[in-house]
Amino acid sequence: MTLNAPTQLLRTSNETYAYRRFGQGAPLLCLQHFTGTLDNWDPAVTDPLASGREVILFDNAGVGRSTGKVPATISGMASHAFAFMDTLNLSSCDVLGFSLGGMIAQEMVQQRPSIFRRMILVGTAPRGGEDIMHLEKPSLAKFLQDPSLRGYSVLQKIFFAPTDSSQTAGQAFIARLAERTEDRDAPSGPQVAAAQLAAFREWEQFTGERFAGLRDIRQPALVVNGIHDAMIPVANSYHLAENLPNAVLLTYPDSGHGSLFQFHDSFVRQAAAFLASDSPYAPY
Amino acid sequence: MTLNAPTQLLRTSNETYAYRRFGQGAPLLCLQHFTGTLDNWDPAVTDPLASGREVILFDNAGVGRSTGKVPATISGMASHAFAFMDTLNLSSCDVLGFSLGGMIAQEMVQQRPSIFRRMILVGTAPRGGEDIMHLEKPSLAKFLQDPSLRGYSVLQKIFFAPTDSSQTAGQAFIARLAERTEDRDAPSGPQVAAAQLAAFREWEQFTGERFAGLRDIRQPALVVNGIHDAMIPVANSYHLAENLPNAVLLTYPDSGHGSLFQFHDSFVRQAAAFLASDSPYAPY
Repeated sequence: MTLNAPTQLLRTSNETYAYRRFGQGAPLLCLQHFTGTLDNWDPAVTDPLASGREVILFDNAGVGRSTGKVPATISGMASHAFAFMDTLNLSSCDVLGFSLGGMIAQEMVQQRPSIFRRMILVGTAPRGGEDIMHLEKPSLAKFLQDPSLRGYSVLQKIFFAPTDSSQTAGQAFIARLAERTEDRDAPSGPQVAAAQLAAFREWEQFTGERFAGLRDIRQPALVVNGIHDAMIPVANSYHLAENLPNAVLLTYPDSGHGSLFQFHDSFVRQAAAFLASDSPYAPY
Repeated sequence: MTLNAPTQLLRTSNETYAYRRFGQGAPLLCLQHFTGTLDNWDPAVTDPLASGREVILFDNAGVGRSTGKVPATISGMASHAFAFMDTLNLSSCDVLGFSLGGMIAQEMVQQRPSIFRRMILVGTAPRGGEDIMHLEKPSLAKFLQDPSLRGYSVLQKIFFAPTDSSQTAGQAFIARLAERTEDRDAPSGPQVAAAQLAAFREWEQFTGERFAGLRDIRQPALVVNGIHDAMIPVANSYHLAENLPNAVLLTYPDSGHGSLFQFHDSFVRQAAAFLASDSPYAPY
């Protein structure tokens, strides 16, 4: 379970990666958001997903207890995820990529098309996407620069919409994150943030025809976004749905970047139904 | 069943409306697309939806065997649907509004907020939407003006995407529509089309703040669209999802206006799960 799965360390030729795994069945690799560690996965999402499959949570290089330097590109992060998968003998799996993790998933499937069976991309953007994690925007900076907000309280503000219902869901979310009290990762510091922000800026760049690379991704994909996401606006999910040849788009109302945590019951039901399908088509 | 439910006639003070009803349970009113009659409902959608609820198919004024003149406004069509519901003693129901029918559903819920419990809006647009049913566009006109295409063959071309997989699904769709051989409506003629096209033009107009009217619709809504809809582009569904306060958006890949018919198994599963929910929130 998310609450008590022991943190394991996997030694590869270059780095040692921290991870947790729980549940039994086909593997689901979970790739985490900006500055997120193993402790940022919501048990209300990862526990029910682990019923019937094996959930694998992973700290990329330089995050949590994984060694190495945080790469300043998505491609660099994908290389670490490949090294982790290869050493774990994970030749194929499903993936849940949230935010930054969804970009890494896209990069990985483009580099090694056989690696993922089905993909869930939540609150993320394609290469060449727009307005990706501009924390300097007033709508985000006002919370990030508020000295009265610390730790998970910031997440409640920036992952959820500015409505009572969404903020209440955000409160419940951070309470769930705090339930694990032992064997926790250290929170990410400013160096992690700086390198990951550099990776977002690089990911906004593109050459040639915009979004053309998405057309080669044949995997069934489920694209999910909160309709009022201030960190990675929903337009990026529209681009994904319009250019991935085999993607279902699902958006949630009254929610922001953390829509999967706000509507965890619905998200888990939809994600599990999507992953359970053996159709070559994404609709489920 | 869609195939053999007898056409019934309901006499009201002004008009006589043709309808069919089948299944048992909470009523689901189905509002039809441009020029569509009772015979344009796909049994692969309406039959499984009738398992556990009562499906009511309805010909608006001047369509099929309903008397009267086809109104040239959505509001006029909503008035006829109200007259039908009132005479049938249907004080509240769920609604499935497809294309033109989705506009009528929006108009009805705004005029009488208590009338609908949950709303499914497929391939439709809000008032003030864009590029709504411009049949003169070359991408549509080439099929509509092709003398070799008649009757349902035109639907296969304009309701489905120009890929082999979508066109194959379109072929299966028109074969299903042809299964009913008795007690059929007459196809709509040019006068029906002209009045309904006038209604689309009027629906594209708006005064005041664009989409502001959507914010008053509190009903849980499921908005569905084919990602390559050439008749009512998916941007209109984005507007719905962004401005309706309580709407889930679901888009289907590799499909056009008839996405619900192409992915009928998925659509029915999603629609039934949405309708079965008693949550005040749209996510299901």
